[in-house]
Amino acid sequence: MLQPIKHVLNQKRIILASGSPRRKELVENIGLKAELWPSLFEENLDPRSFKTFSAFVEETALQKVLEVEARVIAQGTLPDVIIGADTMVTMDGNMFGKPTSESEAFDMLKSLSGRSHTVFTGVVVKLPNRVVKFTETTNVMFGQLDDDQIKGYIATGEPMDKAGGYGIQGVGGTFVERVEGDYFTVVGLPLYRLCSVLYDLFKDIEEIK
Amino acid sequence: MLQPIKHVLNQKRIILASGSPRRKELVENIGLKAELWPSLFEENLDPRSFKTFSAFVEETALQKVLEVEARVIAQGTLPDVIIGADTMVTMDGNMFGKPTSESEAFDMLKSLSGRSHTVFTGVVVKLPNRVVKFTETTNVMFGQLDDDQIKGYIATGEPMDKAGGYGIQGVGGTFVERVEGDYFTVVGLPLYRLCSVLYDLFKDIEEIK
Repeated sequence: MLQPIKHVLNQKRIILASGSPRRKELVENIGLKAELWPSLFEENLDPRSFKTFSAFVEETALQKVLEVEARVIAQGTLPDVIIGADTMVTMDGNMFGKPTSESEAFDMLKSLSGRSHTVFTGVVVKLPNRVVKFTETTNVMFGQLDDDQIKGYIATGEPMDKAGGYGIQGVGGTFVERVEGDYFTVVGLPLYRLCSVLYDLFKDIEEIK
Repeated sequence: MLQPIKHVLNQKRIILASGSPRRKELVENIGLKAELWPSLFEENLDPRSFKTFSAFVEETALQKVLEVEARVIAQGTLPDVIIGADTMVTMDGNMFGKPTSESEAFDMLKSLSGRSHTVFTGVVVKLPNRVVKFTETTNVMFGQLDDDQIKGYIATGEPMDKAGGYGIQGVGGTFVERVEGDYFTVVGLPLYRLCSVLYDLFKDIEEIK
């Protein structure tokens, strides 16, 4: 989608405020040249102080972006675009972040088994004088998993650094019977909406010139 | 999903009858050890001689498997499992295979723009004395694309070897607003159903022993 503005984007300094290897791969797959700056933001916001899951993931994404921006500016340079994102799994009104133990991963996967849950990814695109925020949601239907399958999956090590305890782009993809929405929201970066935002932002800039 | 039968699968000679780098990557991502044998089957079946799209993709997948099996057996060896697949894009009752020219790719992508289409992937899993066939379908909703975006995408070279003229796991993923079904059906190998079939086949075998 971004090809017509590639020459514009290639002249911009774009930073992805994320340490996620999945987000890095997605950005590379779509041919976007971005520097990777893992955010040092502690991700300690209290979900109960937000009215919606969207508000929570967008604020976390914004705090990641602002933390990275401050470090970049401290180096005496100014980026053109900083992109940040935060992903959260929800079911029955509860939020599932990254499991903190194998036993928590087991409980998460056991409760996701045979049911649908919703993945929220909040995205912030920050230009020097403008901030665009949005959230995409995707429903994910898990097949029925037996305890051996869950234990075997935990033994691969894949669940531990992932919201909800699974990675859809890896072995975890074999659990997913069905998705409804942007698949890449589940991976961690909703590509369609992100590219639409970038296209609109930089198509305008090109036209103004 | 396959972890509990990994020790069984690791003793089997599994062949993927495909030359698709996407299918190869999927199989590797889920930790399945398979030999890659690109099929030499000409893919010349006449879709009009099949009652359903499912019957067409399953027969094409079967022919790919049988062609590879014949060559493997000619070498004096017998594989334990051969997996084959065929993917086709359909809209308004028409089938979209791989575009044969850039102009055909343009027409395909233009007609997919702003609309939903359905991807069929037929899969065949062949054991020496047993064949399992199934088809998965996934709906894909494209965002509205302008002509510059389509032309820019064709210039990347990505559309030419892909059914429907796009690759969802690459730059083409930025066009896809929404999927409904197994995302991996669109990539070319429905992982959930394939792994369910393998799990049932080899869990049984293990229990019989």
